Amino acid sequence: MLYRIESDSIGEKQVPKNAYYGVQALRAYENFNITGKRIHPELIKALAEIKKAAAITNMEIELLNRKKGDAIVKACDEIIEGKLHDQFITDPIQGGAGTSMNMNINEVVANRATEILGGELGDYSYVHPNDHVNYGQSTNDVIPSSGKIATIRLLEKALVQLDNLIDALLTKAKEFDHVIKMGRTQMQDAIPIRLGQEFHAYANVIKRDVVRIKRVKEELKYINMGATAIGTGLNADEMYVKHIVPNISKVTGLDLVQNDDLVDGTQNLDGFAAVSSALKVCAISLSKMSNDLRLLSSGPRTGFGEINLPPKQNGSSIMPGKVNPVIPEVMSQIAFSIIGNDMTITMAAEAGQLELNAFEPVLFYKLYESIETLTNGVETLIVNCINGITANEDRCRELVENSVGIITALCPHIGYKDSARIAKNAINTGESVKELILNEGLLKEVELETILDSYGMTEPGISGKELLKK
Amino acid sequence: MLYRIESDSIGEKQVPKNAYYGVQALRAYENFNITGKRIHPELIKALAEIKKAAAITNMEIELLNRKKGDAIVKACDEIIEGKLHDQFITDPIQGGAGTSMNMNINEVVANRATEILGGELGDYSYVHPNDHVNYGQSTNDVIPSSGKIATIRLLEKALVQLDNLIDALLTKAKEFDHVIKMGRTQMQDAIPIRLGQEFHAYANVIKRDVVRIKRVKEELKYINMGATAIGTGLNADEMYVKHIVPNISKVTGLDLVQNDDLVDGTQNLDGFAAVSSALKVCAISLSKMSNDLRLLSSGPRTGFGEINLPPKQNGSSIMPGKVNPVIPEVMSQIAFSIIGNDMTITMAAEAGQLELNAFEPVLFYKLYESIETLTNGVETLIVNCINGITANEDRCRELVENSVGIITALCPHIGYKDSARIAKNAINTGESVKELILNEGLLKEVELETILDSYGMTEPGISGKELLKK
Amino acid sequence: MLYRIESDSIGEKQVPKNAYYGVQALRAYENFNITGKRIHPELIKALAEIKKAAAITNMEIELLNRKKGDAIVKACDEIIEGKLHDQFITDPIQGGAGTSMNMNINEVVANRATEILGGELGDYSYVHPNDHVNYGQSTNDVIPSSGKIATIRLLEKALVQLDNLIDALLTKAKEFDHVIKMGRTQMQDAIPIRLGQEFHAYANVIKRDVVRIKRVKEELKYINMGATAIGTGLNADEMYVKHIVPNISKVTGLDLVQNDDLVDGTQNLDGFAAVSSALKVCAISLSKMSNDLRLLSSGPRTGFGEINLPPKQNGSSIMPGKVNPVIPEVMSQIAFSIIGNDMTITMAAEAGQLELNAFEPVLFYKLYESIETLTNGVETLIVNCINGITANEDRCRELVENSVGIITALCPHIGYKDSARIAKNAINTGESVKELILNEGLLKEVELETILDSYGMTEPGISGKELLKK
Amino acid sequence: MLYRIESDSIGEKQVPKNAYYGVQALRAYENFNITGKRIHPELIKALAEIKKAAAITNMEIELLNRKKGDAIVKACDEIIEGKLHDQFITDPIQGGAGTSMNMNINEVVANRATEILGGELGDYSYVHPNDHVNYGQSTNDVIPSSGKIATIRLLEKALVQLDNLIDALLTKAKEFDHVIKMGRTQMQDAIPIRLGQEFHAYANVIKRDVVRIKRVKEELKYINMGATAIGTGLNADEMYVKHIVPNISKVTGLDLVQNDDLVDGTQNLDGFAAVSSALKVCAISLSKMSNDLRLLSSGPRTGFGEINLPPKQNGSSIMPGKVNPVIPEVMSQIAFSIIGNDMTITMAAEAGQLELNAFEPVLFYKLYESIETLTNGVETLIVNCINGITANEDRCRELVENSVGIITALCPHIGYKDSARIAKNAINTGESVKELILNEGLLKEVELETILDSYGMTEPGISGKELLKK
Repeated sequence: MLYRIESDSIGEKQVPKNAYYGVQALRAYENFNITGKRIHPELIKALAEIKKAAAITNMEIELLNRKKGDAIVKACDEIIEGKLHDQFITDPIQGGAGTSMNMNINEVVANRATEILGGELGDYSYVHPNDHVNYGQSTNDVIPSSGKIATIRLLEKALVQLDNLIDALLTKAKEFDHVIKMGRTQMQDAIPIRLGQEFHAYANVIKRDVVRIKRVKEELKYINMGATAIGTGLNADEMYVKHIVPNISKVTGLDLVQNDDLVDGTQNLDGFAAVSSALKVCAISLSKMSNDLRLLSSGPRTGFGEINLPPKQNGSSIMPGKVNPVIPEVMSQIAFSIIGNDMTITMAAEAGQLELNAFEPVLFYKLYESIETLTNGVETLIVNCINGITANEDRCRELVENSVGIITALCPHIGYKDSARIAKNAINTGESVKELILNEGLLKEVELETILDSYGMTEPGISGKELLKK
Repeated sequence: MLYRIESDSIGEKQVPKNAYYGVQALRAYENFNITGKRIHPELIKALAEIKKAAAITNMEIELLNRKKGDAIVKACDEIIEGKLHDQFITDPIQGGAGTSMNMNINEVVANRATEILGGELGDYSYVHPNDHVNYGQSTNDVIPSSGKIATIRLLEKALVQLDNLIDALLTKAKEFDHVIKMGRTQMQDAIPIRLGQEFHAYANVIKRDVVRIKRVKEELKYINMGATAIGTGLNADEMYVKHIVPNISKVTGLDLVQNDDLVDGTQNLDGFAAVSSALKVCAISLSKMSNDLRLLSSGPRTGFGEINLPPKQNGSSIMPGKVNPVIPEVMSQIAFSIIGNDMTITMAAEAGQLELNAFEPVLFYKLYESIETLTNGVETLIVNCINGITANEDRCRELVENSVGIITALCPHIGYKDSARIAKNAINTGESVKELILNEGLLKEVELETILDSYGMTEPGISGKELLKK
Repeated sequence: MLYRIESDSIGEKQVPKNAYYGVQALRAYENFNITGKRIHPELIKALAEIKKAAAITNMEIELLNRKKGDAIVKACDEIIEGKLHDQFITDPIQGGAGTSMNMNINEVVANRATEILGGELGDYSYVHPNDHVNYGQSTNDVIPSSGKIATIRLLEKALVQLDNLIDALLTKAKEFDHVIKMGRTQMQDAIPIRLGQEFHAYANVIKRDVVRIKRVKEELKYINMGATAIGTGLNADEMYVKHIVPNISKVTGLDLVQNDDLVDGTQNLDGFAAVSSALKVCAISLSKMSNDLRLLSSGPRTGFGEINLPPKQNGSSIMPGKVNPVIPEVMSQIAFSIIGNDMTITMAAEAGQLELNAFEPVLFYKLYESIETLTNGVETLIVNCINGITANEDRCRELVENSVGIITALCPHIGYKDSARIAKNAINTGESVKELILNEGLLKEVELETILDSYGMTEPGISGKELLKK
Repeated sequence: MLYRIESDSIGEKQVPKNAYYGVQALRAYENFNITGKRIHPELIKALAEIKKAAAITNMEIELLNRKKGDAIVKACDEIIEGKLHDQFITDPIQGGAGTSMNMNINEVVANRATEILGGELGDYSYVHPNDHVNYGQSTNDVIPSSGKIATIRLLEKALVQLDNLIDALLTKAKEFDHVIKMGRTQMQDAIPIRLGQEFHAYANVIKRDVVRIKRVKEELKYINMGATAIGTGLNADEMYVKHIVPNISKVTGLDLVQNDDLVDGTQNLDGFAAVSSALKVCAISLSKMSNDLRLLSSGPRTGFGEINLPPKQNGSSIMPGKVNPVIPEVMSQIAFSIIGNDMTITMAAEAGQLELNAFEPVLFYKLYESIETLTNGVETLIVNCINGITANEDRCRELVENSVGIITALCPHIGYKDSARIAKNAINTGESVKELILNEGLLKEVELETILDSYGMTEPGISGKELLKK
């Protein structure tokens, strides 16, 4: 390979001749060979948008000349469009609070701008990574701000899928509204419920999660651009400090606001921790629902067998005909991953010291994984599972009729004590509650029918209340 | 000891003659000897309030006669006032979704009401735990609802302390506004900042935490009373379902609202998980700040030594004169506890199955511990630490003047490259940045003074910008 | 109340006249009102044992005179017997690496020894907390060492219960060895298994957990007494350093060894983290088993219904006759608590700085809770659940005979493809696998009987292999 | 693209004509688009080794003919060598307990073997994925077993780096053995220590971690091959069950042993949880040490400044000359990731149900990430940090001489009370301890010199003990 020589405070170093990145990104690449992966494309895009907005701002206030500035803007636009992403070579888990990624983009933009201006890669006399691309900025405002922009965009995709999930669940709630089945508490037979009510409840908990995620997304719009190194804004021109965030809003199309207190905005990552927490609570809801789907579809012969999940692949390499609830299983695995990631994010946020938190890179890495896997998991959950669920109505009805739990509805009519005795008797003998009641003459058949009307038992009210007034 | 005999579906059992609890609480006591502790007094109070409101409602709709009802109300009032709390004998970690605690209060109220009506303890013909005290209710609506009421009240106490903390920090922010000191990023000398700015940032992050905690507290006002066993409201009279929550609001003085979807409200504990998450994010902020206080007060001779924490106790059994940052240390320990508790709460919330989550007891136990230790920790942090912090102004100034980090302010004037060279030189030789600059004739002394004006360096803007226009 | 005046570096302070604790414990009590609880009795006992061994050692090497030394030993013996425990007033979550608890015992021992020697409480001229009781020691060797002694003793109790659990499970494994039932993977019908095999597997995983817990308990025997403040042993006489650990071994009856590297032994809490991890892995096993018990006993009519857990208390305040799996539920809650505690312990261990970890108190608090709740939970699991489990043999057999999963055994005889087709057909039509096979003439009835011999299907080998050789 | 048609129980499907994977892997690919990543190469290799050993075993017992068997072996060898890895298309987070990856390798091997035998891809009449490649196996023994083999190999690489780290730390311990410096507890000046002692302690804690990791690695050698679907060994010939594990040992070169209880071995993932726990404890040690390195190197002018980390890259995009402790920072980030992954692994292991744990895929994904990032992090820590650390001896000595903490050594000579008074006085006035002692005439200069001999203070014993005997 052909090389050029670049130098920095550490010394000289060979850089591949055609590389748009420079010596600093290369050192980072060598220092941090941790995951074998690269930083997220949404983060690259956000970094480029900030660099573009900074150049625009610096031109507006005449601290950057037009020629250099326009070249920087053009280079950024290319990156925003998805070009040159292979030049971002730093590992997502990197020391240094993101200086490596910030210098990586500074170098790529400087080199590409240099090229646009007719210079050679590595000749920073045209456009300098620090003095021009990074002008008015610091890693410590660029990285948290770009991290927030990327998070907002990823969350928007997640919210689309969560909204779709709510719709899918409500559709099923309607479809199954007439299916009477047994409710279960603590894995024991309880009292009747409608399958539609169960799906309605699933939809409702996700609705609350959507509200929570939207709320934390709103928190992210406060960014600390203008803070420079530690929030005091040293070396950022006052006009730049005023204009930079509105300009980023324009470039990104997002409604962003400058932190009131830039010192606070530079050192605290609580906003990201709050996002992760909201995802974690949503993961709890999704995993609980997924576990329910596995329970309800257990069988086909030796389980609950109340619903069928659509078969999506053979379930076993050895057991022919086996179909497994693989989609709810993957959803639960994603939930476990999100919950673990939240712990990493918590520790990273807690570990901040004084004017900065140097542990952002791992926080971003895990947070983006959480959001994206949630998005992808919910999408497959809807398409490959929820939409295709069918009810085994006969099985559901039969279990209700055969159950002892319906005794509860008789309680207001015959008292807790007699009810408990009959229930115990039914369980021990295998006889039905109805038979035992009739045999003992506690109620007449017509009364029993009234009280044990299935639909009536699934709505508030004392079933057969009119009989009490006799 | 003297005993009376009680019986339930399991069989007969000796109950201490003078006990207000009955056979069911006693069985639970024997089954769950786990922590050696009892359920939280706020939870007992909330349970009594619900029982009182239920009796009032049942009297209103004429499903409970006045005599029994009034006795129940009177018994509940006594418990609300703090009486009979020693009769609540169940372990906070208990199987059964709280049935044991619900039956414990049902029995205590029934027995006390019986006594009021002239009956003997254990004679449930006057007032029956299930048929009268628990009328229209189920463990599965009583326990989540009382859990929320207790949480709201505990959070209110926490919020008072957090508000006090913000005030204390802002007071210090004002007091220290003129103290120029070095900022540090990644434990390395950065650029100047004012000590007041640091305390201002601490106040601001706690402000956001308060907003988050208030928001999740608001979520808790939705309770599922009227749901009975699984949210379908079976055996709860329709009028009861309408009136019970407004009546609980009256009894508690809290603004409570019935869940739209009682099935959802009965099976999901996401609201509690969201509370725990908000506490966890607050714990992150508090622990980070506490760690900063330990760093800034490190010394007295071999550390940063920029501030002094008030000495509250001898620091060592062997090292005379040692004073340690014990209050920030306890705050961080509380934070670690809250973060661990959040994990327990997450797992408990995730483990819900179908119509119910049977793991509420451990969730409540850990959540209440989190809130109370946060409250107590913040109180001691304010009183025994923040309020008494003093600044070592001379030391702070000296470190700024001696530092290399101020080179950053020279960057716009002499460029990044020369700045880096001078900085490296200064660090290696021990010479001051000013001397090196003057020796090289890069700037004049008067220019240096202008640029390196300490206060100027702590506010946005290019320090000595007017010099650039020459 | 009557008071005496004591003073320390912080100043003078009123101490209750009859208190055995002194000014330093009292300051700690006021500084740390966090949980409202006190430190663990096993920790108090271990502290007293160390103080006793130190006094013995100091007398042996003639650095403490006999009169004072004997009084100290006598005072310690009283505490070891359980006396004066109410004088230990510090909160388990306390700042300062345990200096408060160490000074608490130093003061209690000094005052009690003073009393024994005829002095008045608070007159430390007889026996001084620091100069005599704490002689040769530091908080920083006393606290980790006493923490380990307490942990060892608590673990021993846990191991007794875990061994009992293994026995109980193996007894059931034997009892249920002939009960053929369906195995399930991913909640779907798989192939036959014997109920005894399932219980055997439960016993085996606990056996591994016992091995792991014993291994980490072994790690705890290395203690850092002799290290004094930071592991360098400053102010500890060389002969004291040699004799102190053997003397503690004698006093405690435990086989303890001095750390090779006392600096390491003073600053690292990895041994405690390893204990917590082993408990966590055991908690995973226990919770998984508990969840299985809930699944297998689900019903009685609408669930799996393969086993019955012994009814230990009424399951519901509203649903008569309901019996819930409350013991496995409490076991899972304990597991969630242990897992959360492990997170707190992890953060506390990670937060150590330089020569010391100041976060031991919360680590001990949570670790002891984990061990004790595990012990108590396992005990109730054995006595109130495992021992009383019965099998529903008829139900188990019926489910096997009715299942489609037995098709797997036919695979070697009729191939995967035909098997899959038959299975699908059986599920869709509700017909039995046997009927379909016979109808299609794929196998003869006698062949089917041979292949589908239930017991044969539960042991390694191709069921009906001899038929293949035809 | 050209396609061929394959079919399974779900129906027909287009598969790319040249693909070695088949319909089942393709369905999995479409169902699980979660992380965008692929399963780990070490896992692919281990799967191929198991398939090879199974074919060898099946040939030995004459259940597979030589032609088919040899082709399977040849195909496996190619995969073991690293070929065809691009044909493994399933996402590492996948539902179904790994059936998708198992079928993926079954299909790739079947197709490649078919090709070797002269058949066309997709024509499974030569070699069938289920009937031949998977013969005698099930996903449920293949996946846990291959997961263990991959883990063992990854752990071996980690252990090499950890051993290297111990060596590097011990080298530094020797190099710095003469550097006297202040020890610090709770961030406050304590007493002198040698820098070499600190590095020695770092080495020792890692030594314990290595022991723990080796121990859990040893646990992994027990694999459940022969278990087939649920541990009963159904459809696995008895001779196969006996020979398969020895044959895998031969193929892999690892010392593997068959689980005593195959039912247990199939359903429990406690061994993996134990591995993750050991990594977590090691991560605690590494993060604590990394934090210490950041503290000790803090400065250069306003921090502790006792050591220098080698500069590896520019520290700031805005602050010239700044060098940050980026390598210890990345190590701590890796630790946070490992700790979070442990939580995911804990939840996955806990979620197993009955005969199987369906959550292995996410467990493997996170576990392999933990091991590899640890390995890579430790490597960069050694090469780019530890090896290049230098001590600032003058600074270290100066801080000792200037400190108040040395008063502790005087305690045995002048008593705790006077010592405390002098210490307080020194801190308040800024005077040195020596001056104050001499001024008060408490000790003579020559006595002071003897007692405060720096090296003497860093080893056990009462400094200047001979003076006490006067």
